[in-house]
Amino acid sequence: MKNFKLTLCYDGSRYSGWQRQGNTENTIQDKLETLLSRLLEQRVDVNGSGRTDAGVHARGQVCSFRAETDLSCEELLTQIRRYLPEDIGAVELEEADQRFHARLNAAEKIYVYRIWNSAEPNVFERKFMTACPEPLDIEAMEKAAALLCGKHDYTSFCANRHMKKSAVRTVYHIQIEKKGNELKLTFCGNGFLYNMVRILTGTLLEVGRGERSAESMTEILEAKNRGMAGATAPPQGLYLWKVIY
Amino acid sequence: MKNFKLTLCYDGSRYSGWQRQGNTENTIQDKLETLLSRLLEQRVDVNGSGRTDAGVHARGQVCSFRAETDLSCEELLTQIRRYLPEDIGAVELEEADQRFHARLNAAEKIYVYRIWNSAEPNVFERKFMTACPEPLDIEAMEKAAALLCGKHDYTSFCANRHMKKSAVRTVYHIQIEKKGNELKLTFCGNGFLYNMVRILTGTLLEVGRGERSAESMTEILEAKNRGMAGATAPPQGLYLWKVIY
Repeated sequence: MKNFKLTLCYDGSRYSGWQRQGNTENTIQDKLETLLSRLLEQRVDVNGSGRTDAGVHARGQVCSFRAETDLSCEELLTQIRRYLPEDIGAVELEEADQRFHARLNAAEKIYVYRIWNSAEPNVFERKFMTACPEPLDIEAMEKAAALLCGKHDYTSFCANRHMKKSAVRTVYHIQIEKKGNELKLTFCGNGFLYNMVRILTGTLLEVGRGERSAESMTEILEAKNRGMAGATAPPQGLYLWKVIY
Repeated sequence: MKNFKLTLCYDGSRYSGWQRQGNTENTIQDKLETLLSRLLEQRVDVNGSGRTDAGVHARGQVCSFRAETDLSCEELLTQIRRYLPEDIGAVELEEADQRFHARLNAAEKIYVYRIWNSAEPNVFERKFMTACPEPLDIEAMEKAAALLCGKHDYTSFCANRHMKKSAVRTVYHIQIEKKGNELKLTFCGNGFLYNMVRILTGTLLEVGRGERSAESMTEILEAKNRGMAGATAPPQGLYLWKVIY
């Protein structure tokens, strides 16, 4: 049995997210498992580094799978590329240590949220950014972002109300870059809760629009109450950018 | 009657091109005329700077139209943006001189053809670039491009076999830029024949792959025979980039 590490990018627009879901076959994991099982003529189970929601994209999702095969990585990658739908791309395939597991071994994750900050429409990237036509106070957003970093209980930024496990995570940094009309938020942390990046983004946008103060971030974290944070930003601006092992 | 100059961008993927075509309503001109006629409660005819084929995009298509209205340009632009489909964007609207005509007054046009030159898939821009996985000899392409510039009869690069008017055009320059895996060809000229940019691109790609010599461009031009030039490159890599008046 070989153990493989596969890096994927995908346009999540037409999928119900990463994770297999019983009766729908419209997930990226489903597409991949079906393809690999046919290609390798054996049942192949794929472990992703984490879920992405419906409509969320990936530039560097990582998954691992075990299979019995004599194909080299190069041959297998060529086959995978040939049969994947055109909105899922195989970036890299390598043989991994037998103990490698894409989710359990992930040390750090980077997510990017892209915002089109202009009244002028962006027809080419409409499915790959979230439009926010109002002017944004970037300085206030940066202040708020700094308060949201660190080791905290992020219950207020988690959509799962029935979390039993710890909601403590470490966010190493949140970078805000403005380039022309595009605002790019980069989140780097040791892990993120369900919808956490989208709720952080929605809250930061409310700060940018002047609807909340940057200082209020501390109260939100302390409240451990989802109701205190801002709206969940839409999925199409979000990318799982990189997973670090 | 006011005369307006409107600059548009569009993702041409789902349209049958720019030009109104009798029985189909799936052209960009149709969408625009229907919208403007409803908005301004009068029949509005729109003149584009030129046609774009089915599937071809635009970053700076320009059109002109006359209408009786008290709306300011800013008000009218806001209304147009509100009702345009999300794959057509209104970039700019200004009142023009009464004699301004988007096609007749166009002095220079710039087209861009984008090529994704890698075996690795590009899932995010698959509808906005043409994939060419083979290695390309850029130097040979540049030599060929230089020979294709100037004032020539471009009959060999025109898809219309029944052209009655002159096929003489001036191509000021063809620039080839490589940035990472993307190859960008920029064509600047006083006008282009039907499919001309796509046939020029297809021919340059054949030079890049070593299937033709750069020097053969001269013979192709002299032959005045479409059969001598290369294949017509697919529409999805092509953009009408800018029209200069």
